[in-house]
Amino acid sequence: MQSPLGEFELIQRFFKTGSDAMLSLEKQSIALGIGDDCALLAPNLGEEIAITSDMLVEGRHFFAHANPAWLGQKALAVNLSDLAAMGAKPLGFTLAIALPQVNSSWLEAFSKGLFAMAQQYSCPLIGGDTTAGPLNICITAFGSIPYGKAIKRSGALAGDDIWVSGLLGDARLTLAALRHELHLIPTDLQTIEARMHQPTPRIQLGIALREIATAALDISDGLLGDLKHILNQSEVDAEIFLERIPKSATLQNQSKTIQNQFAACGGDDYEICFTAPPDKRNAIQEISQNLSLALTQIGSIKNMQSGEPNMILLDQHGTALSKAETTELLKSFDHFA
Amino acid sequence: MQSPLGEFELIQRFFKTGSDAMLSLEKQSIALGIGDDCALLAPNLGEEIAITSDMLVEGRHFFAHANPAWLGQKALAVNLSDLAAMGAKPLGFTLAIALPQVNSSWLEAFSKGLFAMAQQYSCPLIGGDTTAGPLNICITAFGSIPYGKAIKRSGALAGDDIWVSGLLGDARLTLAALRHELHLIPTDLQTIEARMHQPTPRIQLGIALREIATAALDISDGLLGDLKHILNQSEVDAEIFLERIPKSATLQNQSKTIQNQFAACGGDDYEICFTAPPDKRNAIQEISQNLSLALTQIGSIKNMQSGEPNMILLDQHGTALSKAETTELLKSFDHFA
Repeated sequence: MQSPLGEFELIQRFFKTGSDAMLSLEKQSIALGIGDDCALLAPNLGEEIAITSDMLVEGRHFFAHANPAWLGQKALAVNLSDLAAMGAKPLGFTLAIALPQVNSSWLEAFSKGLFAMAQQYSCPLIGGDTTAGPLNICITAFGSIPYGKAIKRSGALAGDDIWVSGLLGDARLTLAALRHELHLIPTDLQTIEARMHQPTPRIQLGIALREIATAALDISDGLLGDLKHILNQSEVDAEIFLERIPKSATLQNQSKTIQNQFAACGGDDYEICFTAPPDKRNAIQEISQNLSLALTQIGSIKNMQSGEPNMILLDQHGTALSKAETTELLKSFDHFA
Repeated sequence: MQSPLGEFELIQRFFKTGSDAMLSLEKQSIALGIGDDCALLAPNLGEEIAITSDMLVEGRHFFAHANPAWLGQKALAVNLSDLAAMGAKPLGFTLAIALPQVNSSWLEAFSKGLFAMAQQYSCPLIGGDTTAGPLNICITAFGSIPYGKAIKRSGALAGDDIWVSGLLGDARLTLAALRHELHLIPTDLQTIEARMHQPTPRIQLGIALREIATAALDISDGLLGDLKHILNQSEVDAEIFLERIPKSATLQNQSKTIQNQFAACGGDDYEICFTAPPDKRNAIQEISQNLSLALTQIGSIKNMQSGEPNMILLDQHGTALSKAETTELLKSFDHFA
């Protein structure tokens, strides 16, 4: 249903109401929300503000006619995932959205999904912009973190273990099924499709890792491509056991080639990859149990052997992949590739 | 010229370099810039963070084939204008951009314009996102402001003067000429066109008004439409002398109807409208002189007479416009109208 709402009425109806409801519940650091030229954050003493921005474009990050409630959820989740990777606690977010038309039922569903995610992670909408244009959703999210405690990409050290949370590759497997690149029986697709449409930001994990991880990032463009950023910024090598990368039973039914490609380079996982010294293994197991979230050691950080960071990939027999095989696998998801 | 750059190389080449150069010059509150999952802001004690987000869409906020350097400048300027309206000092910004293709010369010009504006207002790029998609530029800007000193829309009081900075309507007049809605001789167009393409954020004015203005906002959608937000949030009426709205000599050559429409409701002015008690007139004149910026009193705030805020518009003879005439004029710019 389309209605001739003006911009301000639109914001009021679908976004301000949900925002006000949350702000009244937990004002905390939000000094001023939607409706002025700027929102105002009043950080607590000794806290830094983590800031992340993600833009989702129709046809690239989601299908045209995607379920708007899932889309609202996911648009915020992918930003919260970046906060999680730094160890930040969500504070609030801004939403800038370009809409091809004012479609009330779409907006209602979208904002319902968005605010469900916002509510779950105590992260109110504090401002933004609405305009007409090809569908584009740009969220900037803010988190707080004790001064100096942010988990950066640059802290990995030789000898550290490399860990990942959850299971990897199911979002890519879902995409492959929806694109008819391969066939999944309906019950298998149902088991895994939420991993593509409704990712879970690992906020509690990020907070728990503040004192444990030496480096971390969220896996959005594929494990190995993203891990490369840790290696580059920490100036270290890595050794990865492809077999250890945690995969769902559904993905394990696929060929070894597909398993490796999707789990190692699939993209859209929104799990956390982190490094930590071996003496933190017990503490990490404890976090895993407390959060009921699998945490798997998949390899380790090594001293850099050549002039640039290198990744050694080991197959199921413990044999290192050749340079050509590695390059082939490392053709990770890139928005402009 | 197009080159097959990957996303990370693209960011590196055009944005990270400019960002790093600025961050090394003035680190201040930026604890971590581009290249991690989040940027980190470390606010000073006793400061609030002002946050604003604006999305610019091709064909709606700028013409296809717009000068990319001007576009880079303007994309940041419109966000800085929102910071100015709160009295905030720029801290940094994130840029999320969707590009239809990787065009090196376009990106070079765009980033040149963007960083020129960033440099001028000491506002470094601290993070963001790059993706493929219909051209869309989403900037979120951050400013600092002493705790409790932000100039909100809700503080206007009966008896306050209403002021505007600069001259209004020239951006709209330029648009009208470019759209061939009216004819301007080339020298006239040259005199005013920068007002549409290269707006000046009134940062110094905003800071100077912290202790003086009771309410403020930036005029982006037309003076009267925007002033309505102050009236709504302050629950007051306003009386405006249309004749007093400051107009350029070029606009004054147009018919009275066009003068009023463009100056009062044109949009894209990026000047500041603010309210202040009459005993601040001398202080305001002084600010005007110090900044070499016209500040004009165009009316005053009145007690609310009916159940909702009302605007009384007076013509050149001091006669109030009829309700119908007012409504006609108030059909201000709205992105979805």
